[in-house]
Amino acid sequence: MISREKHDRMANAIRFLSMDAVEKANSGHPGLPMGAADIATVLFSRYLTFDPKKPNWPDRDRFVLSAGHGSMLLYSLLYLLGYDDISLDDIKNFRQLGSPTAGHPEYGHAAGIETTTGPLGQGLGNAVGMAIAERKLATEYGAELVDHHTYVLAGDGCLMEGISQEAITLAGHLKLSKLIVFWDNNSISIDGPVSLTDSTDQLARFAASGWNTLDIDGHDPDAIAQAIEAAQASDKPTLIAAKTVIGFGAPKKAGTSGAHGSPLGDKEIAGARAALGWEEEPFVVPSDILDAWRLAGLRSVKDRKAWEARLAAADNDIRMTFERRMSGNLPGGFEPAMIAYKQKLTEDLPKVATRKASEMALEIINGVIPETLGGSADLTGSNNTRTSQTKAITPDDFSGRYIHYGIREHGMAAMMNGIALHGGLIPYSGGFLIFSDYCRPSIRLAALMGIRVIHVLTHDSIGLGEDGPTHQPVEHMAALRAIPNLLMFRPADTVETAECWQIALEQQKRPSGIALTRQNLPTVRTDFTEENLSAYGAYDLVSAGDAEVTIFASGSEIEIALEAREMLETNGHTTRVVSVPCFELFEEQTREYKNAVIGDSKVKIAIEAGIRQGWDRFIGSDGLFIGMTGFGASGPYKELYEHFGITAKAAVTAVEARLHDDKA
Amino acid sequence: MISREKHDRMANAIRFLSMDAVEKANSGHPGLPMGAADIATVLFSRYLTFDPKKPNWPDRDRFVLSAGHGSMLLYSLLYLLGYDDISLDDIKNFRQLGSPTAGHPEYGHAAGIETTTGPLGQGLGNAVGMAIAERKLATEYGAELVDHHTYVLAGDGCLMEGISQEAITLAGHLKLSKLIVFWDNNSISIDGPVSLTDSTDQLARFAASGWNTLDIDGHDPDAIAQAIEAAQASDKPTLIAAKTVIGFGAPKKAGTSGAHGSPLGDKEIAGARAALGWEEEPFVVPSDILDAWRLAGLRSVKDRKAWEARLAAADNDIRMTFERRMSGNLPGGFEPAMIAYKQKLTEDLPKVATRKASEMALEIINGVIPETLGGSADLTGSNNTRTSQTKAITPDDFSGRYIHYGIREHGMAAMMNGIALHGGLIPYSGGFLIFSDYCRPSIRLAALMGIRVIHVLTHDSIGLGEDGPTHQPVEHMAALRAIPNLLMFRPADTVETAECWQIALEQQKRPSGIALTRQNLPTVRTDFTEENLSAYGAYDLVSAGDAEVTIFASGSEIEIALEAREMLETNGHTTRVVSVPCFELFEEQTREYKNAVIGDSKVKIAIEAGIRQGWDRFIGSDGLFIGMTGFGASGPYKELYEHFGITAKAAVTAVEARLHDDKA
Repeated sequence: MISREKHDRMANAIRFLSMDAVEKANSGHPGLPMGAADIATVLFSRYLTFDPKKPNWPDRDRFVLSAGHGSMLLYSLLYLLGYDDISLDDIKNFRQLGSPTAGHPEYGHAAGIETTTGPLGQGLGNAVGMAIAERKLATEYGAELVDHHTYVLAGDGCLMEGISQEAITLAGHLKLSKLIVFWDNNSISIDGPVSLTDSTDQLARFAASGWNTLDIDGHDPDAIAQAIEAAQASDKPTLIAAKTVIGFGAPKKAGTSGAHGSPLGDKEIAGARAALGWEEEPFVVPSDILDAWRLAGLRSVKDRKAWEARLAAADNDIRMTFERRMSGNLPGGFEPAMIAYKQKLTEDLPKVATRKASEMALEIINGVIPETLGGSADLTGSNNTRTSQTKAITPDDFSGRYIHYGIREHGMAAMMNGIALHGGLIPYSGGFLIFSDYCRPSIRLAALMGIRVIHVLTHDSIGLGEDGPTHQPVEHMAALRAIPNLLMFRPADTVETAECWQIALEQQKRPSGIALTRQNLPTVRTDFTEENLSAYGAYDLVSAGDAEVTIFASGSEIEIALEAREMLETNGHTTRVVSVPCFELFEEQTREYKNAVIGDSKVKIAIEAGIRQGWDRFIGSDGLFIGMTGFGASGPYKELYEHFGITAKAAVTAVEARLHDDKA
Repeated sequence: MISREKHDRMANAIRFLSMDAVEKANSGHPGLPMGAADIATVLFSRYLTFDPKKPNWPDRDRFVLSAGHGSMLLYSLLYLLGYDDISLDDIKNFRQLGSPTAGHPEYGHAAGIETTTGPLGQGLGNAVGMAIAERKLATEYGAELVDHHTYVLAGDGCLMEGISQEAITLAGHLKLSKLIVFWDNNSISIDGPVSLTDSTDQLARFAASGWNTLDIDGHDPDAIAQAIEAAQASDKPTLIAAKTVIGFGAPKKAGTSGAHGSPLGDKEIAGARAALGWEEEPFVVPSDILDAWRLAGLRSVKDRKAWEARLAAADNDIRMTFERRMSGNLPGGFEPAMIAYKQKLTEDLPKVATRKASEMALEIINGVIPETLGGSADLTGSNNTRTSQTKAITPDDFSGRYIHYGIREHGMAAMMNGIALHGGLIPYSGGFLIFSDYCRPSIRLAALMGIRVIHVLTHDSIGLGEDGPTHQPVEHMAALRAIPNLLMFRPADTVETAECWQIALEQQKRPSGIALTRQNLPTVRTDFTEENLSAYGAYDLVSAGDAEVTIFASGSEIEIALEAREMLETNGHTTRVVSVPCFELFEEQTREYKNAVIGDSKVKIAIEAGIRQGWDRFIGSDGLFIGMTGFGASGPYKELYEHFGITAKAAVTAVEARLHDDKA
């Protein structure tokens, strides 16, 4: 049992490490770590199950600092608890280039950082995903192997962001009872008191979505402990509203926005030292307190060993599959299955929309890879993300493999990140490409973290037709290609769709988006190859030596490119067609390969039913482009293609005019 | 008084026009118009204040169809009420190219369409903005000139989207009592019953944020009328949960997702005709019913005329300012004030961050333009969007000119759209550039609608330093430049910042974003010109005849470009520097101007602390680029610039290597 006096000193160790680190960096957020230190101390020293020496133990509890600006809270904890990745020097190098202790917690910088946070509300969404993953895997593997809690520390900002509503409503609906959210209820935001901008009764709000809610003094260790125990016993997710004082201990700035986001200054820190009875030099933690923390770090070693014994004792197949899935490796049968499927496609040559081609590929994939977890933001029939294997998950039955995410694109994307971060599952999900805008902040974080989530993005151009410009992406391929470390695919037919799916699934360290059509397209990859040509990013679909014209295109415009090629050849112009399913993979090829693909045709032209931005890489800034220059319009899709001049005829006219100019 | 029988037939006119139009288009959403027809009939025939012959009368009530897929509801109403812009032929041409009756309601297609909706939740956000604008202008001009309600019809999807939480919490906080939201509570979404994905008690949720809530049968005209009257009497915004049957009247599909988003088919329509006792041919409205609707359209003519009389009788100055503001024109004093301010800058040559330069410009702007309405998403001190003129608006006092939007970027952007759509105010607001991702769907809609909203987007690169890659935009300039009809500025100093502000304010038909630095920059535009050089989009900052090297740069990298130029000149290389504050405006210049700016230097290099995407337009695909290729890092900003090689030295090295290669 930890005495109150020891608790206070353990919490103060967090407070002073945080103050000192922010002061030394001359940058950072001391207020949250100081305010939430009591919550963190009770949670980490008495309840959270984890092992700093085996930090990735799969059945550990997850802790998400959704209010990521309070990063020093997490770094202090990791150092104090004995995680190897965060040393005292790292604390001293807070916010310095190359240090794991970045301004906001970054996944991959140190074990114990379960997700990258900072953009508010994202961590809460991640945590819902982690809790979904836990319950799903517990249903599959039983409580002997999977039985842990997900804890979140969220701030006022997290709860104000709209994504929080999407996350908490699905969590409540799904009865994620092992999700426990602390709201660091300090009533302060950057502009001043929260009362400037909000009057929401958060307890009532959470209760309205089926949460258990508790209201406590966030500086009372007993109240915190009782709340955690009550939350653990609940059959609903729990919000613990913990009233805290931001910058607790700072004589003048405590309880004000002055404590939020900048160094407190020598005087305030000296005052805090006096007020909290902390006599140590900066960065010094008294040895009895460090010992107490390190002891806390050893609490779950026995649990972890017992778990390892249970895993070792499990049925061989179960253990091996569990370990494989947790490692992120795909089953050995995956690649052969995809190759066989491709071969079949080249025999059948189906003419279907690529969204349908995606469903066909998923039917193979979901049959071979048990860890895929599908879903859609209320567009299941439109996104074609559900297959025969994917029964829907319901609040009372998590044996399914499909999540009806509801009309919650942003929350869905954040939850998918959490599912991937948890491990053991590969989340893929569906939405319209236009609504990638709604989930962009979470897609970006997936790319920054380097995690495998796969976004099926259908209705990928004016080809969706009558729904009109509110639903027609024209700039979205460009905007998504702009995100570093995201593979953005736009396959042209059934074969490329299968290839792109295969590549996306094989990426253990980056997310993918797959843009798919609503309208039918022919299978143009009629020759079977085992090799995944889409993996080159761009490749010769129709080669021609000394081609006078090269047409680059993606997705639905490949059909137009092939038609234009025929017309040009008829008119005596040797023409190549390059299919470009993925810009990013193309850039990763050798210089020789890239130069060869780009080639030196007299005329280069690109066709994509989107804006030009990015295509100059292929055609040069003087190349021809057939695509969109503004928003689309409502109408039948074939008329729209004519109206916006995205036709083989327009391409041929442009090419021949250019050839004529060049001659003149 | 309208009898129940007449009410039913008036509502059925909406239902059958909607069914028939969707059927003819073979595309669209019949379910909502059929389900919400009773609500719309009561509202439009008895309560809504509007005049189809003066549809833009400033003091009309606003009606927002947030569930935009139900567009046929609105088109039916506009036709039936006698709006000139929507004829019966337009109804018959639903979803056809060139018809005003697009798949989703599009602002500008017809008077009476108050905003573009379709992406769910946006209309609700717009409506909160409209209600803010109404109350703000009522405070300024009094109830004689401004006194109207804002009504919304929102669906389950609108309420599930996170943006709805941001919108309703601010509306509740600000006590927007003239905002009345009908929730078309039909319990159906695309994937099936809402119970698949949500268990939220919406009434409790809204009440938790200070809303008045009512629960009614959405097919009972008396209940609808009573609810509207109760809502009008409330001192809070009101949610009217109206239980409806989607596809009301369709014998098999009513109450199912089958009625939501596709034509009902002949059989269902025939069944509905029988069930509802509607004997007319498709698209035929019985003359007594059309008369009843047209009569409803005349209800407010007297009110409108009385209002016009009050305006005419108002103090001359008040009337003229009111009319000017409603027309969207700026006051005559604006341009001279900006020119005088620019002159002063070229004398003082301040070295400040462009976010500070923006504040300085705003101090002038807000002094001359009374209709600006500032704000920030809880980053007031960081965005520098508040000036001496802009007292904060509070729930009880709307005399201020500044909105603390809270940590609600998405809601803020949607509300800004609503404020601009209402008229009489120019909303500008602040956030970090990175969080443009959070509000991207609303920014896109502003661009699609062509409305004047101005987003101040500070902390515009790795130059923000220690907060790290979660907060460092690298792809955001490219991603925002990709949005059609959005002016995206990145000014280099105090003078360009003033110029960009001037341009943004002068745009009556498009939105702008202004990317601004956290770090200090010198004023480089040292020579005073009356002419707004930034309006060219790109211009010679330092000219040189027959320049061997041209450096293109924007924002904070202009300082680096100038330093590189000096080094290159020292080494004997004639070098031009082109400042590029706005890609979009550059594209609008003459071909001659553009060719001249791009020029024919042997080496072209661009410098921007972001990704290359888009810059090939200036430097060609073989040009040199100094910028980012991936995410940033946490550290002091000068170290980051060194680390990522965004320095004058790196630029010079690259240029000289290229010159050497070319010689070899």
